[in-house]
Amino acid sequence: MSQRLIPLAAMEKIMKDAGAERVSEKAKAALKDVLEEIAGTLTKAAIKFALHAGRKTVKASDIKLAHSKVSE
Amino acid sequence: MSQRLIPLAAMEKIMKDAGAERVSEKAKAALKDVLEEIAGTLTKAAIKFALHAGRKTVKASDIKLAHSKVSE
Repeated sequence: MSQRLIPLAAMEKIMKDAGAERVSEKAKAALKDVLEEIAGTLTKAAIKFALHAGRKTVKASDIKLAHSKVSE
Repeated sequence: MSQRLIPLAAMEKIMKDAGAERVSEKAKAALKDVLEEIAGTLTKAAIKFALHAGRKTVKASDIKLAHSKVSE
């Protein structure tokens, strides 16, 4: 997944907030790609948890469970 | 980190692409929060890798190394 889903400006803000003095353009794109990959992985797990609970709607609790159970 | 950095619309797109039929508003917000937390963690590791390589600029290779080495 490398569509233009998450804005690069958001990556720069997050990286600066985390303490980065300077970040390359490709670093922002790399972080975006990694996050979109992780988001897909987490969502797939969350969907399984929702179905396991008898729901078709993915809820916040499914995402939180996926985050705690899925290692990247 | 729970600022409005990553748009919720991007979360919905990613979740639908991952196969979710329906997602709650709070699920989108939860995924956004998780991703922003992971982004901060990855960036902090990437900054260490950049400094270790004698650079102040975080590059894509630092992010990729952080992704491969940092478990969430």
